[in-house]
Amino acid sequence: MFEFTVTGRLPGSGRTGLLTTPHGPIRTPVFMPVGTAASVKSLSPAELEDLGAQIILANNYHLFLRPGSANVKTLGGLHEFMHWPHPILTDSGGFQIQSLKPQITEAGATFRSHIDGSRQFLSPEIATRSQIDLGADIIMAFDESTPAQTSRRQAEEQMQRTHRWLDRCIKVWKSLPSPSPSLKKRGSGEDLTQAPFGIIQGGSFPDLRRASAEYVISKHLPGIAIGGASIGADPVETAANIAMVRDLLPANKPVYAMGVGVYPSDAVAVVTAGADMFDCVAPTRLARCGQLYHPDSKSEYIDISKSIFTLDNKIIFDDCDCYTCKNGFTRAYLHHLFKSRELLYYRLASIHNLRVIIRTVEDLKNGAKMPL
Amino acid sequence: MFEFTVTGRLPGSGRTGLLTTPHGPIRTPVFMPVGTAASVKSLSPAELEDLGAQIILANNYHLFLRPGSANVKTLGGLHEFMHWPHPILTDSGGFQIQSLKPQITEAGATFRSHIDGSRQFLSPEIATRSQIDLGADIIMAFDESTPAQTSRRQAEEQMQRTHRWLDRCIKVWKSLPSPSPSLKKRGSGEDLTQAPFGIIQGGSFPDLRRASAEYVISKHLPGIAIGGASIGADPVETAANIAMVRDLLPANKPVYAMGVGVYPSDAVAVVTAGADMFDCVAPTRLARCGQLYHPDSKSEYIDISKSIFTLDNKIIFDDCDCYTCKNGFTRAYLHHLFKSRELLYYRLASIHNLRVIIRTVEDLKNGAKMPL
Repeated sequence: MFEFTVTGRLPGSGRTGLLTTPHGPIRTPVFMPVGTAASVKSLSPAELEDLGAQIILANNYHLFLRPGSANVKTLGGLHEFMHWPHPILTDSGGFQIQSLKPQITEAGATFRSHIDGSRQFLSPEIATRSQIDLGADIIMAFDESTPAQTSRRQAEEQMQRTHRWLDRCIKVWKSLPSPSPSLKKRGSGEDLTQAPFGIIQGGSFPDLRRASAEYVISKHLPGIAIGGASIGADPVETAANIAMVRDLLPANKPVYAMGVGVYPSDAVAVVTAGADMFDCVAPTRLARCGQLYHPDSKSEYIDISKSIFTLDNKIIFDDCDCYTCKNGFTRAYLHHLFKSRELLYYRLASIHNLRVIIRTVEDLKNGAKMPL
Repeated sequence: MFEFTVTGRLPGSGRTGLLTTPHGPIRTPVFMPVGTAASVKSLSPAELEDLGAQIILANNYHLFLRPGSANVKTLGGLHEFMHWPHPILTDSGGFQIQSLKPQITEAGATFRSHIDGSRQFLSPEIATRSQIDLGADIIMAFDESTPAQTSRRQAEEQMQRTHRWLDRCIKVWKSLPSPSPSLKKRGSGEDLTQAPFGIIQGGSFPDLRRASAEYVISKHLPGIAIGGASIGADPVETAANIAMVRDLLPANKPVYAMGVGVYPSDAVAVVTAGADMFDCVAPTRLARCGQLYHPDSKSEYIDISKSIFTLDNKIIFDDCDCYTCKNGFTRAYLHHLFKSRELLYYRLASIHNLRVIIRTVEDLKNGAKMPL
């Protein structure tokens, strides 16, 4: 049920592929919009389909706290809960907890909920069981994500704990093969298990990254992710981090670069570096803050909050095939909606940014060289 | 271009009719969703069409302040600005200014902008010119709206000022026949002028209401509105206020009850009382606060914020043909989105409430008796 086949070559280390999941196929490379709390902010499932989203990401940290993973399971699993019949990936929460100044022990991470300040605990076992309850097609190992400016000593310690935690995640996956109700529905049972991905850590240290890659690869999981703060924020550093381990990665496993895709150029960089999957909250978050992607701008966006747009009757940019541009919503109207904090703004802006980054990846795919 | 024909009878003083405007026909009775600042909060024009909106309302007070009516004119008029090709009505701002503790003189109203606290002035002339710039199909007289608990003396004073202001509004309409760019486009010119409606005031005093009705009727305008705080808030009082003047109103003019439609039963009450048009911000505002219309509830709504909905996998109510219910979005998911303040909630909830109130009116129309 879960298979990955490389179908063609792209510039650099890029490649195209086909990833089969219980909720349908995904043509890679693929950008995954982020629906943190079981909703890609402001957008309906139909709009996500319309803008070309093949798979979306949801977050175990958020859903574990609210509405609770067991509740989502009772309600039929995440696909049914949020009306998204296509593939879903859940992140384990390791990365999100980072920003909450958690207390990390070998057992797991103790932190305070951002919702009510309550004391909470996530461990490899709890995070994995929670993700099994949510029922996404792809679930992530519970890792200790290495922040920026981490010393070698600390990065190594975090990497090694991430490896030990990976073993504990795998133990739970193996002991709890029962898929979520939403996965059960679609098939005969056994073959419909969720696909777990391991996560490579190691900070910005090439030898640690390679050691981590070797460890994760040795587990023979269906996919391999590259995580930590040195991935995502800066495209050059991201590409360098992927390059450190690229030659080690098995050709028949999808490579997921976590948190990458702030601007459209990042999509080009990460695909060229060899990633098959990537995700980022930035396209929708920047949209909500007024940054609308624009190919002719050096910064890659126009800032719609600026008063120069008050009387600008043009669309965001010509040839853009997003719903917002295609339907002629003007910069002047978007500027007005933004200034008035009208809810429609967030939607029209999010659609534009997501469509631009997804189209960037589609264009890369369409330029794919001959099949291997 | 602007014509009203009564087409049938409904229970009580109710009737069906056909109102022709430069941007298309409206079958009355009609509930008009409110798009205060050129956007019905959270909804796209396509969604408004889909839920059966025939005409929407926008507010001169808000648009005068931002983005500025002259700017909207430069951008092609309100229809083009907000991508709503169907009829629009603009309220003059008289009612909105009320809540800003304005300084009222014979000249007009001085008040502070809710946006930046700046001192602003609206007069019958300015409000009318501003609405001509916006270019709605129907524009409203600039009135001094009588608040609740107003003494007879004060209500009479406000009514008389409203009448004098009406004369000044009419003078401007006559001196500035040039329609907005968006109205010009559609035809040959002269016949495409906007339709001005006068507003009956007089508080809760039957003799004042009747005197006001007679005054407004004597102006032979295309439509007649009933305004003031005694309209809208309470359905019984609203019906009583309409009843006070119903026999005076000419049969061939549309009657607009301003600010009516908090709950679906209000729609029934106001149509039965004889109104052809009505509007209210409540359906979308209540939706955003968690009140979702429900026919079996005594209160006419369920409060989706309540934790009893956490595991409720039903839709808001069976047989509802709104997008939200039709597509199976559950109470549990809506509850989760509401608690998480997800932007998608506001949309799914607003669609439901607007569709329910519009369908209530459609159902009344479909039960219409034989044509007159």
